[in-house]
Amino acid sequence: MTKALSILGSTGSIGQNCLRVIRSLPGRFQVISLAAGKNLDLLARQVVDFSPRVVAVGSSECIEPLRQRLQGLGHPRPVHIVAGVTGQVEAATLPEVDLVVSASHGTTGLVATYEAIRAGKQLALANKEALVVAGELVMCAARERGIEVLPIDSEHCAVHQCLRSGHRQEVRRLILTGSGGPFLKTPRKHFDSITPEQALKHPVWRMGGRVTIDSATLMNKGLEIIEAHWLFGFPSSQIDVLIHPESIIHSMIEFQDGSVMAQLSVPDMRIPIQYALAYPDRLAVNRDSLGLDLVSSRRLSFRKPDRKRFPCLDLAREALAQGGVMPCALNAADEVAVEAFLARRLRFSDIPRVIEQVLRQSPQARSLDSIEDVLEGDREARRRAWEVVAATSS
Amino acid sequence: MTKALSILGSTGSIGQNCLRVIRSLPGRFQVISLAAGKNLDLLARQVVDFSPRVVAVGSSECIEPLRQRLQGLGHPRPVHIVAGVTGQVEAATLPEVDLVVSASHGTTGLVATYEAIRAGKQLALANKEALVVAGELVMCAARERGIEVLPIDSEHCAVHQCLRSGHRQEVRRLILTGSGGPFLKTPRKHFDSITPEQALKHPVWRMGGRVTIDSATLMNKGLEIIEAHWLFGFPSSQIDVLIHPESIIHSMIEFQDGSVMAQLSVPDMRIPIQYALAYPDRLAVNRDSLGLDLVSSRRLSFRKPDRKRFPCLDLAREALAQGGVMPCALNAADEVAVEAFLARRLRFSDIPRVIEQVLRQSPQARSLDSIEDVLEGDREARRRAWEVVAATSS
Repeated sequence: MTKALSILGSTGSIGQNCLRVIRSLPGRFQVISLAAGKNLDLLARQVVDFSPRVVAVGSSECIEPLRQRLQGLGHPRPVHIVAGVTGQVEAATLPEVDLVVSASHGTTGLVATYEAIRAGKQLALANKEALVVAGELVMCAARERGIEVLPIDSEHCAVHQCLRSGHRQEVRRLILTGSGGPFLKTPRKHFDSITPEQALKHPVWRMGGRVTIDSATLMNKGLEIIEAHWLFGFPSSQIDVLIHPESIIHSMIEFQDGSVMAQLSVPDMRIPIQYALAYPDRLAVNRDSLGLDLVSSRRLSFRKPDRKRFPCLDLAREALAQGGVMPCALNAADEVAVEAFLARRLRFSDIPRVIEQVLRQSPQARSLDSIEDVLEGDREARRRAWEVVAATSS
Repeated sequence: MTKALSILGSTGSIGQNCLRVIRSLPGRFQVISLAAGKNLDLLARQVVDFSPRVVAVGSSECIEPLRQRLQGLGHPRPVHIVAGVTGQVEAATLPEVDLVVSASHGTTGLVATYEAIRAGKQLALANKEALVVAGELVMCAARERGIEVLPIDSEHCAVHQCLRSGHRQEVRRLILTGSGGPFLKTPRKHFDSITPEQALKHPVWRMGGRVTIDSATLMNKGLEIIEAHWLFGFPSSQIDVLIHPESIIHSMIEFQDGSVMAQLSVPDMRIPIQYALAYPDRLAVNRDSLGLDLVSSRRLSFRKPDRKRFPCLDLAREALAQGGVMPCALNAADEVAVEAFLARRLRFSDIPRVIEQVLRQSPQARSLDSIEDVLEGDREARRRAWEVVAATSS
């Protein structure tokens, strides 16, 4: 059976890997629609390769340039090109689409993800923000439509696989593993002088700027706690983080009977992508490129995260515990603080300080009852975050 | 719901641990019958503690001594005491028994296990021999009665748990892990002079004599390949062995999509015992004694087994591939060779040589169509094995 897909964010890292997976499994998937922002050269090549019926671009000014590129590439088939948020929603909710890969960021990604769920589409979710800022809304909509949200990231994909070995009421705790980032062993006193160049060197994964800095501050694990809470329904107290520098075990589940289930693989995003696309099946991959060789790998080690050197972990737990707008504010403040750090307006050690101050100033009691509430909460938190950045860096 | 149990081999290591598990979970299990050999002091205390309705002893001479011990302990309730193979079969097939724990060895254990399955009892199988010598008969009977055989040993219990994360046609290979035993790093040239005392020191598990020597020769992994074949239906070519000296990961499944699922726990037999007793549920254990602490554990390492230093692995694969009486002959020859080694009649390095010679002399074409065939095949192989031992040691 062929699954009909909509790929939101097709020119990003996840989107590109997603198309590699689709290409490696001929006949399994059909690409109905692609959505991207402004990388029109790559998008045009993807259109030629996968012949989607609908393509969404970032804004209406991109429509004609994309059409020209397609003509230049000699693409023979007519393509319906749409633009902006409404265009991406259209791409995601086409009637023939079975599954939407949500890998586009920001407001557009959130709105399209939410509307895809409301349209009853299966969802493979790589857009972490959607769950962090609007977890309750997204998961309520998914429950209403009877949709299982499949995570596209190595940790939650591992959790999903481990959970298959038991019943959820038998789970004692989720154990999210993380490499610990480049500053795992850096003394706290050196954190003030960490440069963006140092922070952008991730030991295992090659990712975008913010995700890489989030890995260095361990905010990525903080955000993953929030995501795991929404995806799997466990409270923060049942979600632990364990540093595992070798990044072979991607997460674990401790069951109440003393068994710990773990998922291991090479660190390659194609594995969680293919899992999410193929679920409930497991399709074969080429073992030469994606097979795990435990004999040649380093010895697997584990340590507790240092909450003092990496306060972002506790900030995320607090935001989740307070609920309402707080995780949304955490996410916005982190994005702003990372941007300011990369622009050399903040020190590395200021990132958690800025986030903490933004959380302190946020209206704790405010709940988020609609995507509009979320977007408004996000805007407010960003405004406050920039104010805090200005006050901190001056 | 209370499960009604029959424990065959209650005074052995598995049997005792089984009763510890049952005691730790009040109200979950009821012991209907116990069966043991000659350890009447312990058996009498178990009868007092668990009040079974029927008790089977090794032979009829044990009946009166057990009755006297029970009187001495002031056991108030009447107990029906039976003896020998027929007694153990009676204990295992009582109408009210839901699940039989098969942890008694030798002929008696095999016959009782087989009859329990034919009587439609669920089976928790710690008796490795039953599958090695009569895997086809046992599993055919189980299939006919629609019974799932649950393994009580850490490796196959791990495989069983990992298999829950996917479908069997999606499995690329089973990876049975093993500590590697005490001679993991001993050069081959020293194998001639290994003493029974040295071989009986197992790095992780405390077990009986033969099992411990089997761990030192890696025949235990060879036998586990055969068991895994019968329990889970995979050919030998899909069953790998990986040495993992820390004994934290108890086995793994590599799925065809590149994910490897692993089960981890402290090395304590109560975990696989409780899993088998409680399946399909996972019941809570006391985390203080059975919780896994990965942070304090040694780094996890893996290496390929050295097939030259440990030829028993390949001997087991050959016996499985040849089928028929061969695995039964392998088991009998190994038991005899180990006994001769412990009696200082053979060198450590002679164990695989004796087994190989016995296999060479065995009638490869002979199939085993009944338990009587199995017992006859076992007797013949033992006789041949003692002859080979005599020729080797003289």
